[in-house]
Amino acid sequence: SYEEVAVIEGDGIGREVVPAAVEVLDAVGDFEFRTARAGDAVRAETGEALPQETYDTVADADATLFGAAGETAADVILPLRTAVGSFVNVRPARAYPGVDAVQPETDVVFLRENTEGVYAGHEDRLSEDLSTLTRVVTTSASERLAAFACEFVADRGGDAFQVVHKSNVMRETDGRFRDAVVSVADDHGLDTEEVLMDAFATRICLDPTQFDVVVCPNLAGDVLSDLAAGLVGGLGLLPSANIGPDNALFEPVHGTAPDIAGEGVANPSAAILSAAMLLEHLGYDGEAAAVRGAVESVLESGPRTPDLGGDAGTDAVTGAVIDRLD
Amino acid sequence: SYEEVAVIEGDGIGREVVPAAVEVLDAVGDFEFRTARAGDAVRAETGEALPQETYDTVADADATLFGAAGETAADVILPLRTAVGSFVNVRPARAYPGVDAVQPETDVVFLRENTEGVYAGHEDRLSEDLSTLTRVVTTSASERLAAFACEFVADRGGDAFQVVHKSNVMRETDGRFRDAVVSVADDHGLDTEEVLMDAFATRICLDPTQFDVVVCPNLAGDVLSDLAAGLVGGLGLLPSANIGPDNALFEPVHGTAPDIAGEGVANPSAAILSAAMLLEHLGYDGEAAAVRGAVESVLESGPRTPDLGGDAGTDAVTGAVIDRLD
Ligand SMILES: CC(C)[C@H](C(=O)O)[C@@H](O)C(=O)O
Ligand SMILES: CC(C)[C@H](C(=O)O)[C@@H](O)C(=O)O
Repeated sequence: SYEEVAVIEGDGIGREVVPAAVEVLDAVGDFEFRTARAGDAVRAETGEALPQETYDTVADADATLFGAAGETAADVILPLRTAVGSFVNVRPARAYPGVDAVQPETDVVFLRENTEGVYAGHEDRLSEDLSTLTRVVTTSASERLAAFACEFVADRGGDAFQVVHKSNVMRETDGRFRDAVVSVADDHGLDTEEVLMDAFATRICLDPTQFDVVVCPNLAGDVLSDLAAGLVGGLGLLPSANIGPDNALFEPVHGTAPDIAGEGVANPSAAILSAAMLLEHLGYDGEAAAVRGAVESVLESGPRTPDLGGDAGTDAVTGAVIDRLD
Repeated sequence: SYEEVAVIEGDGIGREVVPAAVEVLDAVGDFEFRTARAGDAVRAETGEALPQETYDTVADADATLFGAAGETAADVILPLRTAVGSFVNVRPARAYPGVDAVQPETDVVFLRENTEGVYAGHEDRLSEDLSTLTRVVTTSASERLAAFACEFVADRGGDAFQVVHKSNVMRETDGRFRDAVVSVADDHGLDTEEVLMDAFATRICLDPTQFDVVVCPNLAGDVLSDLAAGLVGGLGLLPSANIGPDNALFEPVHGTAPDIAGEGVANPSAAILSAAMLLEHLGYDGEAAAVRGAVESVLESGPRTPDLGGDAGTDAVTGAVIDRLD
């Protein structure tokens, strides 16, 4: 029987780009799609941004394709990352030929820790004046991330990766993260370069070609991958994968883009590239490569949505991608 | 009697750029300089990166000019920020005509909270596997920062500023920060625009002209100002001021640059611009403007150090700045 893919459009342009990505998936394989709802709209109706039914659909599927949620983004995406048991968020940021970029040589993959750091979420209001948040770092989560990174780097034929931290200030927590990551890399015979989080921000702007695979704590991965998105020309082209041991969720990095939602002009590239990551994750490497190739070809010489200076709609771009699949 | 300025060269190029900045201060005013030591070198000799004597000299001075410290940077600069009672770190990041920049339109001032956040430094090793860090946010520190921001913006003739946070994830702590800052701005009749930390990273790369004065929690200010440094072409041109109620410390944002230290080719601009911030802080507005103008003029049409593609030394650039003071 076919693999089950949960599909959540969410809000805003999620409703436009997710159907586009589903069309592409349909064009290259046979999947059983299970649609589910999450986000602002379903909260307005039911009071819940992430209904239990949706959570269960995602947890039970082989993989999920998610669009975007509005105000409720954190209420939706953080539990969904848990639903798929995701321990790493894979965020490739690359510039494409033919697309304006601040730094056209950018081609970096961020491997973001996806369970802890400041996202572990223990906050307390200790007095009228004072609140605290408990940032959590474990050796086990850091090692699991590092083991994934080693396999990821080896699969690409690499022999090294960078590890970002701020252990000069967060000595105990980021020190633990750093030690765990570096020691797993050592065990795998891979080299690591340590880069302080602030220095990374400067260096990637000046010369992104210094970086290839970058392993980060949770918040650092959030901010630095969005920084890289700026360098490649915006969030419209960035896919991401939340990977767990036996489930995964794929989502464009962009949000709901309320300014253009409903107009049929949203750029579907990030969602389609997220679908390509889903294909690869399920073992359809050839299909994944075909989808990526088609997106690249359209970006270089096909119809474009307004965010890339064109006047084509989502459908035209999606159709062009499907036409160029080989 | 003359104002007392504590002077700490520190390590690496600190020993070259701080004397350059002192020469410039000497050329525009009369100060009583008190030299003191801090950093790797003094630790190697005495076991302490920040001798008590240095701490006291800084605490007792009217202002301090600091260069850079190597491995011991955090052990030096964090206590020195405390020594001057600094609650805000002022970090202007602007591109200069004639200097290559990734985004030549960048002209942003970061006002970074300088006492708490993850820098408050409560870390615990709770088990073999687990460490935590307690991130601290108080309304009082956030309000003090915001009050400074309001005055700062009003002095520039502005009527609004941006406030960065990540309150969609750090609801209680960054929510507190956000609420305090926005409410103080309201009281002063200033507008605020809220920008999520990750979105800020994307947006400033794409178009830095969207931002003017940006108020940030401590770590966000660290990382985002270094990001802006990348956009203006590197750390070599960025000054900073750690301001307290009745004391302050000024330092270039760059580090010790061990690769070029001792060669006499370090770019003194960031240190000299830090001296200009010191002058302004002590009320020498005319002198501060003259120094800034001279640095800009040299950057545009004077001798350049190798980091800016020239072959002049630190002395030649410093001499040119002094010549162009009017
Ligand atoms: C919506 C928000 C909670 C989320 C995050 O911070 O992880 C988003 O910024 C992202 O990066 O996917
Ligand atoms: C050296 C380090 C502790 C420091 C900081 O993180 O504040 C530095 O990066 C800075 O920004 O001045």
